Amino acid sequence: MTAPTPNTPHDPQERLALLEAELAPQLPPGAMTADADILQTYSADRAIQCEAEGAAVLVRAASTEDVQAVMRFASAHGIPVVPQGARTGISGGANAVAGCILLSVEKMAEVLGVNTAERTVTVQPGIINQQLKDHLRPYGLSYPPDPGSVNISSIGGNIATNAGGLCCVKYGVTKDYVRQLKVVLADGSLATLGPRTAKGVAGLDLRGLFIGSEGTLGIVVEATLRLVPLLAEPLTAVATFPDEATAGTCVAEFMARGAQPSMLELLDRTTLSMLNDYGDFGLDEQAGAMLLMQSDGSGDPATAQREVEAFAEVAESVGALDVAASDDPADSEALVATRRLAHPAYEKYTAAHGASELMEDVCLPRSRMPEFFARLAQLREESGIVIAVVAHAGDGNLHPAIFYARDDAEQERRAHAAFEELMQLGLDLGGTITGEHGVGSLKARWLAKELDPVNQRLHLAVKQAIDPQGILNPGKMLSHLGG
Amino acid sequence: MTAPTPNTPHDPQERLALLEAELAPQLPPGAMTADADILQTYSADRAIQCEAEGAAVLVRAASTEDVQAVMRFASAHGIPVVPQGARTGISGGANAVAGCILLSVEKMAEVLGVNTAERTVTVQPGIINQQLKDHLRPYGLSYPPDPGSVNISSIGGNIATNAGGLCCVKYGVTKDYVRQLKVVLADGSLATLGPRTAKGVAGLDLRGLFIGSEGTLGIVVEATLRLVPLLAEPLTAVATFPDEATAGTCVAEFMARGAQPSMLELLDRTTLSMLNDYGDFGLDEQAGAMLLMQSDGSGDPATAQREVEAFAEVAESVGALDVAASDDPADSEALVATRRLAHPAYEKYTAAHGASELMEDVCLPRSRMPEFFARLAQLREESGIVIAVVAHAGDGNLHPAIFYARDDAEQERRAHAAFEELMQLGLDLGGTITGEHGVGSLKARWLAKELDPVNQRLHLAVKQAIDPQGILNPGKMLSHLGG
Repeated sequence: MTAPTPNTPHDPQERLALLEAELAPQLPPGAMTADADILQTYSADRAIQCEAEGAAVLVRAASTEDVQAVMRFASAHGIPVVPQGARTGISGGANAVAGCILLSVEKMAEVLGVNTAERTVTVQPGIINQQLKDHLRPYGLSYPPDPGSVNISSIGGNIATNAGGLCCVKYGVTKDYVRQLKVVLADGSLATLGPRTAKGVAGLDLRGLFIGSEGTLGIVVEATLRLVPLLAEPLTAVATFPDEATAGTCVAEFMARGAQPSMLELLDRTTLSMLNDYGDFGLDEQAGAMLLMQSDGSGDPATAQREVEAFAEVAESVGALDVAASDDPADSEALVATRRLAHPAYEKYTAAHGASELMEDVCLPRSRMPEFFARLAQLREESGIVIAVVAHAGDGNLHPAIFYARDDAEQERRAHAAFEELMQLGLDLGGTITGEHGVGSLKARWLAKELDPVNQRLHLAVKQAIDPQGILNPGKMLSHLGG
Repeated sequence: MTAPTPNTPHDPQERLALLEAELAPQLPPGAMTADADILQTYSADRAIQCEAEGAAVLVRAASTEDVQAVMRFASAHGIPVVPQGARTGISGGANAVAGCILLSVEKMAEVLGVNTAERTVTVQPGIINQQLKDHLRPYGLSYPPDPGSVNISSIGGNIATNAGGLCCVKYGVTKDYVRQLKVVLADGSLATLGPRTAKGVAGLDLRGLFIGSEGTLGIVVEATLRLVPLLAEPLTAVATFPDEATAGTCVAEFMARGAQPSMLELLDRTTLSMLNDYGDFGLDEQAGAMLLMQSDGSGDPATAQREVEAFAEVAESVGALDVAASDDPADSEALVATRRLAHPAYEKYTAAHGASELMEDVCLPRSRMPEFFARLAQLREESGIVIAVVAHAGDGNLHPAIFYARDDAEQERRAHAAFEELMQLGLDLGGTITGEHGVGSLKARWLAKELDPVNQRLHLAVKQAIDPQGILNPGKMLSHLGG
């Protein structure tokens, strides 16, 4: 898609010379580097299986003006630009492409202002999600979105991927908390999208269009976010089930009763086992699946208590092995902290077993989860592949993790086949290939299976309209659409 | 913007003959009409001051296929199409333009399915908002968005304008409740936008782009909406203040304390007086302004009670004349019903006084309301114009209604000048020209003042990409953008 202008050199050395001669002088000293080690570090996010080669330089922008200078230069020369936040994504969205400028905004990490009457905060994109939460706490305000990567991912990256998390089942996703964006476009111009006010319908919702666009439309250089009063301390309940399908039935029936949990997570037996290996948590590995439910009762302990009781009732009625509730905040926090360690536990497993991991992210209508899990059980048997599952079950957002031995090509092939089959199953059950991780390069081919041909044409028309040269993050989300 | 193809007749009779010969046979009998009385009725929404002339025909679509047939024909001939819901808008967005096809979807009003586990409903666009609410009640489910026009406006129109309402301050706007849209594009093709699942990040958020696009990008023919459990019965408090600015201060301070009212409305003295004239409600006309606050405590009466007490405390601390609370649901409902009669009360006033009304819709940061009201008080004195105010004050969304004698050109001029001054004031205070009514033709010129030049260019590029002939609702929202 990217077409260099006629006099832009293809040769890496010549391209680098051009960048050093013409772009570097427009940037603060040291902002641009071609150091091989640094380039390697910055060339990839955490999607180890995606390509990440050939970056020409890394620019660490310190200001909006730096971002604009890069884009003006890149558009003048038809050079691809890969925007980067904290590179904690797992779909390859921040990975290098041949001859590109890696444009990191990690150094733009200031809080620019908190407005308590309006309940907003204005930030630069590089600030880490948890750091923002910590900054807001003294104001009695909270920014709810809490992706699993909350301690390491940046708000800019969260906006670029419309990040979700554990609280979504009650509190929604990143998109629900963005009021105004300042974005630098492909040609280096700066646009302010959306009003800062609580409501506003002046013009098209281009702010929303840029959220989740994975760096393909522009680069967020400032965001004004909507906040809520600090969330109340939740009550927690845990239930174990003979298998995942029964746990899925519990979720669907609980939610159909009008429940409003602030968290509803599922962990399968393999995950429980890997967690015990990781931290000796004494989780019940005999269970086929565990559900971890929290309710904050929107601030009312009695409501939360009723919700815990309703959960216990539904869990028992569908055949739970055990149900336990806790009103001890320390206990609850420990359980949630354990849930948040699923990924490190997987990493310990892969390191110990010379394995690699493919992480799935389908999202289904909640009521279809039992069907998904039934097929998943078959798939494990047929393939002999180790598949662990954590899920934001209240949202129907499932993360099967598929493991394979790194030195076993045949197992790797079966793992990839399982990865693809689960995505297809997600689509067949009325779901989507990605609930929150994004498309990146990992699922670009699959995006073309999910979107209908007319929608694909719309995507390409909008991309062409906003980035006519196709220099923003080429080869990623939109690269396989045809229509 | 619309360019008819070379052989499309400009002459109204010839154009009508073409429509009757080529389009009518593709539609159900009677779906197309050129009856002058019917055309006049359907040529305008409720924005009486906007142009609404020259429609060629009205088509009342009964199916998606009808909508597609109209758009295929219109794009083949370069004929403008004005999509219409219930025509209850007040910005002229549904008004006729010269030679157009008025395309009404009011007959497409079925509920296609309720999914209790997923908490969604799928509807056709013509269903009236309140009818949908009534349909959902037996399921224990609620669709929160409640524009003032809740009894007369359609879901399709609500989506086209991203309608707001009284509950927004806690429950958000239409956009927050739309999961999946089926839209017919300018060329007649049908696209499905967005997954039906709770979360989903597969591709650009084109679903969001179409919400609030006021018929300029496509025509919604089906929508899957997110629902919530039935909202709890709220408690209500009423406070009166010496003037609007003090009421505005109360709102800003109350919200800065972390309040989460489910409604926070302001009525000024003129509105109180017109309401008393309309229904003899015995509202206190000595007060300069009244605030009507509701809290549903998210289901917990004690939380609601605390919020009522906090409101009373803040109101008294800023100088309220009187504060009263009610825990009688009938009383509360009566008060809210009275608030909802503000517009009919204005209409009674205009009818009785040979007057016309210009309705403002600016939305400000809440903390800037006192400044707005201070200037409004000056403006009333300087201009001698009658200006009443109702406001979704919790959102900073203000609806000054500006009245002028229909036979007094000088007063009309001053009224229009006041209308424009208040929009400029809204922008100067960091707000937007329209919080929820939309741009339509009424504020198209002002949209060009609100959006920066780069944003305007983005708007035009996106419009050009999706409707290259410019046949969808020309001369409306986007017509004054230049960039």
